[in-house]
Amino acid sequence: MKKIAILGSTGSIGVNTLNVIRTFPKVFDVEILCTNTNIDLLEKQIDEFEPNYAVVNDKELCKELQDRVSKKICILCGQDGMIEAIQNADYDVLVAAMVGFSGLIPTIESIKRSKRIGLANKETLVAAGELVIELARKYQSEIIPIDSEHSAIFQCLVGEKSENIEKIILTASGGPFLNTPIEKLANVSVEEALKHPKWDMGNKITIDSATMINKGLEVIEAHYLFNLPLSKIDIVIHPQSVIHSMVKFYDGSVKAQLSLPDMRIPIQYALTYPDRLPSDFVQTDFTQVGSLTFFKPDRNKFECLQFAYDALQEGGLKPCIMNAANEIAVNKFLKKEIKFNQITYLIKEALNKIENGSASDLEQILQCDCKTREFVNNIKI
Amino acid sequence: MKKIAILGSTGSIGVNTLNVIRTFPKVFDVEILCTNTNIDLLEKQIDEFEPNYAVVNDKELCKELQDRVSKKICILCGQDGMIEAIQNADYDVLVAAMVGFSGLIPTIESIKRSKRIGLANKETLVAAGELVIELARKYQSEIIPIDSEHSAIFQCLVGEKSENIEKIILTASGGPFLNTPIEKLANVSVEEALKHPKWDMGNKITIDSATMINKGLEVIEAHYLFNLPLSKIDIVIHPQSVIHSMVKFYDGSVKAQLSLPDMRIPIQYALTYPDRLPSDFVQTDFTQVGSLTFFKPDRNKFECLQFAYDALQEGGLKPCIMNAANEIAVNKFLKKEIKFNQITYLIKEALNKIENGSASDLEQILQCDCKTREFVNNIKI
Repeated sequence: MKKIAILGSTGSIGVNTLNVIRTFPKVFDVEILCTNTNIDLLEKQIDEFEPNYAVVNDKELCKELQDRVSKKICILCGQDGMIEAIQNADYDVLVAAMVGFSGLIPTIESIKRSKRIGLANKETLVAAGELVIELARKYQSEIIPIDSEHSAIFQCLVGEKSENIEKIILTASGGPFLNTPIEKLANVSVEEALKHPKWDMGNKITIDSATMINKGLEVIEAHYLFNLPLSKIDIVIHPQSVIHSMVKFYDGSVKAQLSLPDMRIPIQYALTYPDRLPSDFVQTDFTQVGSLTFFKPDRNKFECLQFAYDALQEGGLKPCIMNAANEIAVNKFLKKEIKFNQITYLIKEALNKIENGSASDLEQILQCDCKTREFVNNIKI
Repeated sequence: MKKIAILGSTGSIGVNTLNVIRTFPKVFDVEILCTNTNIDLLEKQIDEFEPNYAVVNDKELCKELQDRVSKKICILCGQDGMIEAIQNADYDVLVAAMVGFSGLIPTIESIKRSKRIGLANKETLVAAGELVIELARKYQSEIIPIDSEHSAIFQCLVGEKSENIEKIILTASGGPFLNTPIEKLANVSVEEALKHPKWDMGNKITIDSATMINKGLEVIEAHYLFNLPLSKIDIVIHPQSVIHSMVKFYDGSVKAQLSLPDMRIPIQYALTYPDRLPSDFVQTDFTQVGSLTFFKPDRNKFECLQFAYDALQEGGLKPCIMNAANEIAVNKFLKKEIKFNQITYLIKEALNKIENGSASDLEQILQCDCKTREFVNNIKI
């Protein structure tokens, strides 16, 4: 039995991870489940999967759950509780599916135990890529990406030498505003931004897809995961989201990984790699997919995409600043405190005004994250 | 230095193999060159690549070449000469790029020397797949496919377990008559049939693409190369020929290999596998490829496709009969002795009238090939 710890079990990736686990009761066992605030769903998940640990980040809700659950299970509260579970529980794979920067510290703790990380939380690598990859190497912890694009590249690279890569090509659906004129972006509503054309995901990543900063974050993630310079990472708009990404080798051959959009495929692969398990996920019938198309991304319209390239180019704390500013800005947009195009403005302000520095230790990264959040929260719109 | 023997060096694959070799003078060296009748081109190739052996299948033309060439080189004549070269020369990889059944015996001789075979000659596996694969296993000879479809599948399977394959999907351009109504097929000209929309290839394979028996031959080739039952081999029409083929794994993930059509890519891969070498082949820019589309093949219109499935299903000598009948029929069509749709008729006659038998030894296969050729040659149209 492979024992699985899921950070963010009530989110979209977490729920899909449990869908995979439910299909293979003789292969996988759940060891840790964890939520930020959704204790109702967590309670149901505890009932069904009987983990040894559950963690609720919100301390009051945590107490409420402790009162409700009578099973023999260790329910821990807050960030400290989460670290305690990660340090003590008996698991093989950590699925890091929390939202944003909050995934960083728990992921590092799991890396220090040399566990396999199924990484859905790209912000971990954006904010602290150098540090995380260095620790993973030191502790021989395997990081298997769950993001569909990075899983695609990982799968295309199986059995290949990474020095033979000419380029990797991240595909992007283009999000809900691919065909919206730039001058109309100011007034799009939260509801419109949350209507992703291809993927059903959490709110944060869906807004990130609408601004296309998500693809920028993925470029940074790919840079660290595959140890490639920016010049070897391309983006192509592929509205059908059937090709999840591609690797171009320097002999002219290109490999791609494809499927109808279904996050269970990369999740399951991260759990089973280097093997695969049979699934009843919807099979891709190519005679039904219609035509597959590809376009250049519009970097004028989607400025956030460029921010990511620039931040990685400058290095140091810049990606951390960009990430923190984006988290606050997206949150403000979701609460309807700012307009859609002001997300870009807030990130730009943070990138321009906050001083860069070294990102080689965790303390510096945490401080920078904190400072950026405060800075963006105080910008008057 | 890797030493290369090329059977069929004056054909399309042979010339492209030499194009690859020319790019890497410090990596590859030519040991054997060989032609059926094109001694003018062979003479130029000898001048440039200075092999130790050259073979001309046509004995008179062979003598002419012997008179012309003054270099220190062993020029051998006919099938016997070819076997002698294959048995005695010092080479690492045999590129089997002869046309049709004639590639069988030389390929077997090279397998017996445990050489790597870069296999472009699919008829070898169609006529004698069981025998050839068995010999390759026995003599530990690696067969690396050069057909773009099979190279694609081979590349997609690197690092993967073959028991995880759900299906392989061979893509087919559909040839020049993809959109020609069935009732017009009777009267298409040789010139029209030779106009392949995507690939610049030899005459035989181009006509095979027009009847789509080429895809049928590829199904049989794939069956033997990848040890898969017919039920796991699908065909999809993909007119752009950018995706060269795909593998669907049983977890729902699909891997594809892509590039603009350029035979140098699979040829070079067969020479360099498991490594790759940098090339200046045209790079595939996905923002320029337009849209990629997929359709079901029309098995009523392209009956030859069905013949291949049926022949493999029946087994024994049936694929050999189909192959021999097709070679004669294509030849007749190229000489304008029969109409395009009579190719199908001749193959059907041979498959219906010639008795099946075991294909486990070479003698039986050679006899069957011979008998079928005679039978088809004697059919009155």
